[in-house]
Amino acid sequence: MPEVATKRVTAPRRYLYGPGPTNVDPRVYDAMTQPVVGMRDPFFFECMADVQAKLRDVFGTQNQMTFPVPGTGSSGMEAAVSNFVTPGGKIAIFANGVFADRQTEMARRHGANVVRIEKEWGKVFTQEEAEAFIEREKPQTVAFVHGETSTGAYQAMRPITAAAKRSGAITIADCVTTLGAMPVEIDANEVDVAYSCTQKGLSCPSGLAPITISPKAWEWLEKRPALDNWYLDLRMLAKWYEPPHVYHHTPSTTLFYGIREALAVIEDEGLKNRWDRHYRAHQRLLAGIAKLGFEPFVQEPENRIWHLVTVKPPAGVDEAALRQKLLENYGMDVSGGIGALAGKILRIGIMGPLATDERVDALLEALAASM
Amino acid sequence: MPEVATKRVTAPRRYLYGPGPTNVDPRVYDAMTQPVVGMRDPFFFECMADVQAKLRDVFGTQNQMTFPVPGTGSSGMEAAVSNFVTPGGKIAIFANGVFADRQTEMARRHGANVVRIEKEWGKVFTQEEAEAFIEREKPQTVAFVHGETSTGAYQAMRPITAAAKRSGAITIADCVTTLGAMPVEIDANEVDVAYSCTQKGLSCPSGLAPITISPKAWEWLEKRPALDNWYLDLRMLAKWYEPPHVYHHTPSTTLFYGIREALAVIEDEGLKNRWDRHYRAHQRLLAGIAKLGFEPFVQEPENRIWHLVTVKPPAGVDEAALRQKLLENYGMDVSGGIGALAGKILRIGIMGPLATDERVDALLEALAASM
Repeated sequence: MPEVATKRVTAPRRYLYGPGPTNVDPRVYDAMTQPVVGMRDPFFFECMADVQAKLRDVFGTQNQMTFPVPGTGSSGMEAAVSNFVTPGGKIAIFANGVFADRQTEMARRHGANVVRIEKEWGKVFTQEEAEAFIEREKPQTVAFVHGETSTGAYQAMRPITAAAKRSGAITIADCVTTLGAMPVEIDANEVDVAYSCTQKGLSCPSGLAPITISPKAWEWLEKRPALDNWYLDLRMLAKWYEPPHVYHHTPSTTLFYGIREALAVIEDEGLKNRWDRHYRAHQRLLAGIAKLGFEPFVQEPENRIWHLVTVKPPAGVDEAALRQKLLENYGMDVSGGIGALAGKILRIGIMGPLATDERVDALLEALAASM
Repeated sequence: MPEVATKRVTAPRRYLYGPGPTNVDPRVYDAMTQPVVGMRDPFFFECMADVQAKLRDVFGTQNQMTFPVPGTGSSGMEAAVSNFVTPGGKIAIFANGVFADRQTEMARRHGANVVRIEKEWGKVFTQEEAEAFIEREKPQTVAFVHGETSTGAYQAMRPITAAAKRSGAITIADCVTTLGAMPVEIDANEVDVAYSCTQKGLSCPSGLAPITISPKAWEWLEKRPALDNWYLDLRMLAKWYEPPHVYHHTPSTTLFYGIREALAVIEDEGLKNRWDRHYRAHQRLLAGIAKLGFEPFVQEPENRIWHLVTVKPPAGVDEAALRQKLLENYGMDVSGGIGALAGKILRIGIMGPLATDERVDALLEALAASM
């Protein structure tokens, strides 16, 4: 082939203080330059199995059925929702933000009978509310969002999973924002189905959606009526991950190299150490930003996602102009609100490489200088 | 964060003489190490627009609606099929291999009324057959596979698109194997919807599915009834690609860097030069492999995919054992048949970096030494 010198793509270096994508460890980029191998290469099967084992560790589960869905976090959501609803079957959704609304929209598109309990954005649900809702509706499936990326609210799992278990419903937990940065503990919390993404708590480039499915949910899945879609069919995906590896799609070898290394980075740090690091960064950021006059959007401290801090700016501060300055002058990419919160809050992510004293302080200084 | 030295993942170097994934140009790996930026970063919007423009060039189209679907080639297939069938609406499928069967299965799952014209695997359809079938069935949508990866058969587009145009049907062409390695010329061939993958003719890692949609098909899409899925909703995806870029999913910045560079590699070589290179490699491989006693599976020379050569091994040669030797002794990954052709043929890909005299000769020598 001809040798041609073209201009190299040179991306600006950004500090990704948003809800994702996050900054990525250099080890992960390096792993992704490893050469692609064939999809049935013994080396690749070994890599897949390693990714599955490491995902079980971060999910806190023994579920055999734990693997990446071949798409972004939203493909994981649609895999969970579409496989665990049936036409006319009832799904109960705990709605307090954009991503519960997305679960709702998906469930409706797949023909489910959707019932919702709604709450003001930024609030979460209590055990009493969950029990009353589930007891009244007796749904086949229950879905909730563990860390609501649009509001910064953290929903404890037990109040919902305990009530669902009593009624025999299958629970789906959206762990897109929480996995890898704060405890999810799928088995201890008796969650049936949980999905996530790679580009937030796992600090890897986007493109895969880890999912885990309990034996009870899998048994239900094996007996369910025909599915209305193909690409996100979990039974077919499982046949690819398990020997004899029945062909379904052509997996992205490169994304697998990346997620394997991102999970190895977490292993090397220690999952608990990583959680603690995110919690310390959370405390430091909250203390510092209060001094600058920002007010937490989520009232109760225990209901806040550690690594995605949502705040209302002080009176007179234009949040869009502030974010623009941070990006242009400091290369710091902070996010605004979405949906009903557009223009009203800042969403500040301190994930993976940014969950350190140094990076929290750098952001606080830049904020102070830009207001 | 603690500095920990872990063992680096070291993938074996393989020559990927299969139907995909293919070998990747070092420039593409290098581009993928560029740091992730935010999804609304001006740099990323520029990158998206550049990828769209370059995809129009390789598709041979002016279609505004040309962009990557966030998944592998099969997600492109399901996006095309699910968006362009309606419950009970008729889709006519030209079936002569695994991937037409996959289109069929997807269309059925999405509730379409599927009619099929079937042909022996390795054969393709004539203009008369296409006309008679489409005139008889009067379908809303017509789907066919341009390069059938399971058989090596190349289906000329005009016989089908001309007949579909006369009847007013929307045509879907599967260009998963052909795009980037041989002419597809979407506009000249009057195709309405075409989809592909990144890991074959474009020689990039897997993970995105380029799709292109004609203005006529887009107009139909705008009026279609509600869609039964969310992640592959082309109208929502289009709103992300067009200003003001309405949030849908978190795109994989890294895969975009990769596909942009893979398309730049093609631009630098020149698309026509690239097609010619693949055709020359095809001729050289066919001539050489005939001398070794292999027989082309596709009878008519004009019906053969250039860069995916399917052959029946000579009597007494165990194809599985042969492939095993090639992998173990030469790092050459050649594929066997799938579906009805499992165990009966070899599928030899000479794509991207492997479509050269040198790499064809190296394979022929290794084959000769391994029989």
